[in-house]
Amino acid sequence: MVAPLRVGIAGLGTVGAEVVRLIERQGRVLAERTGRPVKVVAVTARSKKKRAVDLSGIKWAKDPLALAADPEVDCLVELMGGAGDPALSAIDTALKAGKSVVTANKALIAKHGLKLAKAAEKHGGALNFEAAVGAAIPVIKTLREGLAGTGINRVYGILNGTCNYILTRMEQEGLSFDECLKDAQRLGYAEADPSFDIHGHDTAQKLAILASLAFGTQVAEKSIYVEGISSIAPEDLRAAAELGYRVKLLGVAVRTAKGIEQRVHPTMVPKSSSIAQVMDVTNAVTIDGEGIPPITLVGPGAGGAATASAVVADIADVARGIRSAPFGRPVDKLQATEKAPMERHEGGYYIRLMARDHAGTAATIATRLAEQKISIESIVQRHPNGSEPGKSAKGGPVPVILITYATHEDAVHRALQAVQRDKVISGKPQVIRIEKN
Amino acid sequence: MVAPLRVGIAGLGTVGAEVVRLIERQGRVLAERTGRPVKVVAVTARSKKKRAVDLSGIKWAKDPLALAADPEVDCLVELMGGAGDPALSAIDTALKAGKSVVTANKALIAKHGLKLAKAAEKHGGALNFEAAVGAAIPVIKTLREGLAGTGINRVYGILNGTCNYILTRMEQEGLSFDECLKDAQRLGYAEADPSFDIHGHDTAQKLAILASLAFGTQVAEKSIYVEGISSIAPEDLRAAAELGYRVKLLGVAVRTAKGIEQRVHPTMVPKSSSIAQVMDVTNAVTIDGEGIPPITLVGPGAGGAATASAVVADIADVARGIRSAPFGRPVDKLQATEKAPMERHEGGYYIRLMARDHAGTAATIATRLAEQKISIESIVQRHPNGSEPGKSAKGGPVPVILITYATHEDAVHRALQAVQRDKVISGKPQVIRIEKN
Repeated sequence: MVAPLRVGIAGLGTVGAEVVRLIERQGRVLAERTGRPVKVVAVTARSKKKRAVDLSGIKWAKDPLALAADPEVDCLVELMGGAGDPALSAIDTALKAGKSVVTANKALIAKHGLKLAKAAEKHGGALNFEAAVGAAIPVIKTLREGLAGTGINRVYGILNGTCNYILTRMEQEGLSFDECLKDAQRLGYAEADPSFDIHGHDTAQKLAILASLAFGTQVAEKSIYVEGISSIAPEDLRAAAELGYRVKLLGVAVRTAKGIEQRVHPTMVPKSSSIAQVMDVTNAVTIDGEGIPPITLVGPGAGGAATASAVVADIADVARGIRSAPFGRPVDKLQATEKAPMERHEGGYYIRLMARDHAGTAATIATRLAEQKISIESIVQRHPNGSEPGKSAKGGPVPVILITYATHEDAVHRALQAVQRDKVISGKPQVIRIEKN
Repeated sequence: MVAPLRVGIAGLGTVGAEVVRLIERQGRVLAERTGRPVKVVAVTARSKKKRAVDLSGIKWAKDPLALAADPEVDCLVELMGGAGDPALSAIDTALKAGKSVVTANKALIAKHGLKLAKAAEKHGGALNFEAAVGAAIPVIKTLREGLAGTGINRVYGILNGTCNYILTRMEQEGLSFDECLKDAQRLGYAEADPSFDIHGHDTAQKLAILASLAFGTQVAEKSIYVEGISSIAPEDLRAAAELGYRVKLLGVAVRTAKGIEQRVHPTMVPKSSSIAQVMDVTNAVTIDGEGIPPITLVGPGAGGAATASAVVADIADVARGIRSAPFGRPVDKLQATEKAPMERHEGGYYIRLMARDHAGTAATIATRLAEQKISIESIVQRHPNGSEPGKSAKGGPVPVILITYATHEDAVHRALQAVQRDKVISGKPQVIRIEKN
């Protein structure tokens, strides 16, 4: 009989309680699958309040550090959250004692992952964090082990359910960003302070982790260009639909001639792509391997049961004795990344301008784009019933929507600055990058 | 310095040659990722003809058995295909010598996988076959390791690119099955003898493997109900589209009160489901875990580069020392399955009948269904311009299309037999099962 893997869990919120239940319920299967019984022997949490999970026979540790140091714990499961202490020092303590650690804490891994991975590699423990990105979607395992022999050109995804829910509602019901955000908050899909999600920072932390696994680069959240979804208007989603696109908040990491470009921004994706089909709070990641068609993994990116599923899978890998390098390669082999200057980004663009009531506005815009060698794939000018092109019925501004062929971001900026100087448009141009599949 | 993993490759077709190239090209990354250099030391193939891959410095073994027995080979990679010898005895020889084996051979794994897994478990080698199902889609790894702690309720997928290509073309262009099959053959997507693909047997072999991994059952191709796509007509795809469905050839394994039901048949899936978006030769697998929303993995299910990618990932796992039970659990823990009697299948049905030119046909059909307690969700009766319901302009038969709520398959059969006895329809009714997401 093999000795059981003795698990200590720090944090007994929704996920922690579900992990305790899953290990109990799946006990026999887990032992069969991993060749070793898995047993929760100790837990700790901020309060000892009554919980909807049976903790009888399980030791209560006085704090996370005590749990991490407990010689009867082989594997620390950190489910407290927070990018610093006590999670950080508990994990550090466990790894330095040669234990394995499983965590769902993306902020901590994005900020301190390299240091922790180094400790794991040095002392022989595992550091698993499947639940940190895309919850139950096995994207970490796929990048870490499943595509080990395939060079990766691009990895991109919908990594934030809150933003995808808002964009879905806006598109399907023609509602404003603010209305949909309020609904998301009411349904518990968005926090009271939603800025971390809607401004793209949650996506950026997850992208930083995926990019490291995909490209062998150091996790570097600060290398990522980040733009959120609050400027997206229902008319952008309508125009996108008419032009064969959908707007998604994507995290994109892509190999370019200038290095690895990492960016988070609202993105037009072709309606026929796998990623465009992903609606509501669902997450998805697409991986473009060298010479092979894209692989897309779709599923729940959050939720207690989905997160717990990934945590238990990580625990099972520890029980099996799998000790993959946390970021796919040893930390000292990971390369530094620089922040990709978005001015050098190349791609197609969607541009929405409000043309003033001038004759020749379209010609002026087209000239300014041509001066920057930007080719136009399509141009749509809305003119209410009966009015002349470029002129609304009431003489107010009318929207002009352009899709460009691939060009440079700085060329787009220069062209739009010139158009603004020409005083043929009112307000700020809306610019959304296009990602082709 | 760790000793390299010495790989021997049997079979140098498209996949074998690409594996040699990938290991060469990704050498440094593979060593970093697995902690051990990976080296192709020996190969064998039917002919020694010149190939578009550099084999200098690599030993040529006289046959697959000699390669398997070569003491300088640690890991046998079998890419010859065929459900029997020489692949079978080569793999058996390698495993019994304590070596690890990687294969892309689904027929062999479906037929002899249990025996081979037993040998692997006994002698301590790995038996990896990611490429056997869905090529580069990491579905084997996900079921074997990624969802280890989650009970699975259902796994289903599009596992045959030939059939999905034909159904896609039929739907998009309104062409007949025969026309699309010919095109598929011309493009190399279908074999000269396409029966193994179009009659569902290829899907069944892959499903047998997935079901074992998902449910801990013995691989048993003969337990699977199999029905192919050759009876599908363009009018079925048109009707499906109008009713909000698409027709896909699915392999479905599902936990029911009566045990694990395994079946392959053309299936109506809701157009909004992830699986319905999968077009052309692309494959996809959806996994329904207990208490969590579905996870769908989409990607190339065939092709030299995609298959080679999965083979090299399997080799990398061998190099890392990962020794998961080939079917997720030890062979002696896998349970026997019985063939699920389709008569007891429960679900919704699409039924297309050609109603003869009789008044009251619809009423007769509705009565026969009601006698079997089958509730109708929708009924569509096509009547060409200006003609009466149930009567075509020329007085010939007109199609009646029904969607039922969930019912039993034997009830559907009894109702349709009664309708046929009533002589109100001509020809054989078309019946397609509906799978809800």
